[in-house]
Amino acid sequence: MKKILLATSALVMVAGAASAEVALSGSARMGLVYDGAAGASGETYFSSRVRIVFTASGETDTGLSFGASMRADQLGGNNNDSGADKDGDSNGDSTVFISGAFGKLTMGDTDGAADNLVGQVSGVGYGPNDALQEIGFLGSSDTSVYYEYSAGALTFGLGAGQLYQPDPTPVGVDTEDALNIGVKYATDAFSVALAYETTDTVDALHLGGSATFGAATLKARVTDRDDQSDVQWATSVDYAIDATTITAFYTDFGDNDTQHYGLGAAYDLGGGASVAGGIVQQNAPAGDTTFADVGLKFSF
Amino acid sequence: MKKILLATSALVMVAGAASAEVALSGSARMGLVYDGAAGASGETYFSSRVRIVFTASGETDTGLSFGASMRADQLGGNNNDSGADKDGDSNGDSTVFISGAFGKLTMGDTDGAADNLVGQVSGVGYGPNDALQEIGFLGSSDTSVYYEYSAGALTFGLGAGQLYQPDPTPVGVDTEDALNIGVKYATDAFSVALAYETTDTVDALHLGGSATFGAATLKARVTDRDDQSDVQWATSVDYAIDATTITAFYTDFGDNDTQHYGLGAAYDLGGGASVAGGIVQQNAPAGDTTFADVGLKFSF
Amino acid sequence: MKKILLATSALVMVAGAASAEVALSGSARMGLVYDGAAGASGETYFSSRVRIVFTASGETDTGLSFGASMRADQLGGNNNDSGADKDGDSNGDSTVFISGAFGKLTMGDTDGAADNLVGQVSGVGYGPNDALQEIGFLGSSDTSVYYEYSAGALTFGLGAGQLYQPDPTPVGVDTEDALNIGVKYATDAFSVALAYETTDTVDALHLGGSATFGAATLKARVTDRDDQSDVQWATSVDYAIDATTITAFYTDFGDNDTQHYGLGAAYDLGGGASVAGGIVQQNAPAGDTTFADVGLKFSF
Repeated sequence: MKKILLATSALVMVAGAASAEVALSGSARMGLVYDGAAGASGETYFSSRVRIVFTASGETDTGLSFGASMRADQLGGNNNDSGADKDGDSNGDSTVFISGAFGKLTMGDTDGAADNLVGQVSGVGYGPNDALQEIGFLGSSDTSVYYEYSAGALTFGLGAGQLYQPDPTPVGVDTEDALNIGVKYATDAFSVALAYETTDTVDALHLGGSATFGAATLKARVTDRDDQSDVQWATSVDYAIDATTITAFYTDFGDNDTQHYGLGAAYDLGGGASVAGGIVQQNAPAGDTTFADVGLKFSF
Repeated sequence: MKKILLATSALVMVAGAASAEVALSGSARMGLVYDGAAGASGETYFSSRVRIVFTASGETDTGLSFGASMRADQLGGNNNDSGADKDGDSNGDSTVFISGAFGKLTMGDTDGAADNLVGQVSGVGYGPNDALQEIGFLGSSDTSVYYEYSAGALTFGLGAGQLYQPDPTPVGVDTEDALNIGVKYATDAFSVALAYETTDTVDALHLGGSATFGAATLKARVTDRDDQSDVQWATSVDYAIDATTITAFYTDFGDNDTQHYGLGAAYDLGGGASVAGGIVQQNAPAGDTTFADVGLKFSF
Repeated sequence: MKKILLATSALVMVAGAASAEVALSGSARMGLVYDGAAGASGETYFSSRVRIVFTASGETDTGLSFGASMRADQLGGNNNDSGADKDGDSNGDSTVFISGAFGKLTMGDTDGAADNLVGQVSGVGYGPNDALQEIGFLGSSDTSVYYEYSAGALTFGLGAGQLYQPDPTPVGVDTEDALNIGVKYATDAFSVALAYETTDTVDALHLGGSATFGAATLKARVTDRDDQSDVQWATSVDYAIDATTITAFYTDFGDNDTQHYGLGAAYDLGGGASVAGGIVQQNAPAGDTTFADVGLKFSF
């Protein structure tokens, strides 16, 4: 027997605003992927995925908001207690937060200031290739902490990776320092963001921006790592015509001399569904490769 | 604090039909199992299980239905992305579909035409032994695709296994072809289904049918594999007396000379609960064995 | 798109009492932990965790209650079927129950009579160190069964561990017997509980009690194992001042000459949130160690 969850806010009013609650949402995709680097001369395969997300939320008597998030499909979730429950938990997917006038403090498997504020340019396709346009951040270890404060158009972020890893393996070792700081200024028409990351071995400066001109939205990113001589950069344009969005991007990975060109389109079917497809050309010293996909994306 | 999900359709109307949503359902069982093949002279043990299922659904502006399904307890779920998220995902348990006047297209961990249309005869007991009456299908690899179209009493199905396995292991190998096609004709009184499966190494033809005569429902299956000289076959009868259903089955596995006889009963307790028990006798060249179980089944 | 679950009972009435349903709840915590035994001279680290729980429930036509519980984050959950689905399932986290005038019968990953009736004294902190005040029970293997019957202030419990382990590993071996029996008498003002556990290798007798004097609640436990010459004991006091609760505890592990002293405080923020912190001093022959933590606890 299936249970249906309500999606209206009208009925929820009856439930009382003070009650903590757990909400369900999710996403899914299905389609075909062509991977030009696979097999002898490229391979095409089916690719589908489902993700279900729990979003818990509540409010204290003094009006502070708190909550947590977890994905249902994630392995290694939150269950790595060891010994006398003195765990640092691996937090493979979950985050916990509290927010108020002071800003928002998040712990767990959270991104840092660079990921949250600078972000990535737009990718193409229905999902499986939606990382080819990305330029990496230094990242942080499993359990990290992130603080964000917004005042009008300005957002400030400060993050730290777990400096000591109690468990799981490696247990009891000092892990690498991972600290990051960033600031973003965003209006309806444009945004600009700057972030700095530092670890024991490498530092990186990230600059990103976006601007909307009528139906077109431009995005750009530049990353300067102190262990590379060339900067990495990426740019994309999304052009909306009614329910259709055309997207193109270009990335240059700097030192390793690899570029990606992408072109794709998505059509909004309504109700949380869209059909999307894209082609990405990868030019690298070892040879050029084509990736393509077409399929459906759903959000619930 | 517990959150209660509504189970009425009346209230859901208020929520608006256009909204995509995620519903929860589940099943559980608890009881005792006797396994005559275990230990020195058979063993009896407790066996209980819980399964929770997420069912996501939505509708596009033009009236196409879409959705996804995932089990909460499944390991290896949908989280086997590799490299730049160019995943084929293992889909250990999840499916995604879109349906409309054209039929229904499902991707992920879906069964093929033989499983869906021919199916199995009835088994006995509260669950742990509910596979002893089954005659296997050739099956398909992790991510497969299945298309089904119904017109009145007639249902047509076409399925394919993943022909290339991008990840996880084995990565980057061409896997076996797995194709299947089937047709089913079903009325309230009877059904008949035929399906054909082919892989690189073996082909199989499956014929199944069911018929209801008053309180009795007969089911039968025959499977002819081209790597075996004898056919495999199974038959069952379910006889309903008020809230009680008596079930008996017989299977013959053909070449390997193994037969199963089963007898069981289930009593519907109402509200989604039933009590059930059964005994299965297995006759095989290596010796005869008895399996039995009794317990409770719940659906939520 | 997020789905909001209702938290009122008023609306649920509309849904009809006879329908089986699945409810969601959860808990989360975030904070800082100091572990004096880690690293060269103690380490401080972030520790956060999220837990989501499914609670399924229903009622038969004759008024028996049934249900099941499962945690969303648990690995190895309920998915260890082997062979022809003749599983004993590992039940890493799930339980199934049926209850009525005869009492309540639970199977799966359930605690026995000692854990359920005697329990533990109060611990301190926001969670990560909330096991340092515990004195262990003998426990039971993965799938166990527990029966409990209450009549007025009196509760009687009887439990057994899985005596034969069908799967997973070790497969097909007779595991250790684990049986337990207990009784508890509880009023609003005080409670006392006695439980006896026996396995193939060791027996244990557990006595526990609690009493409330105005704002103070005292708890105490004594455990006598037949493989140890000294008893283990623990005591705690919780003192409530408005929204603040002060907690202190002392434990003595008997033969291994280890003691724990703990002192902590928790402040209820309302809406399911609280802030808590605590310090625990561990005195052991190998040397003394301090543990401390401070953070937030949320329930949803």
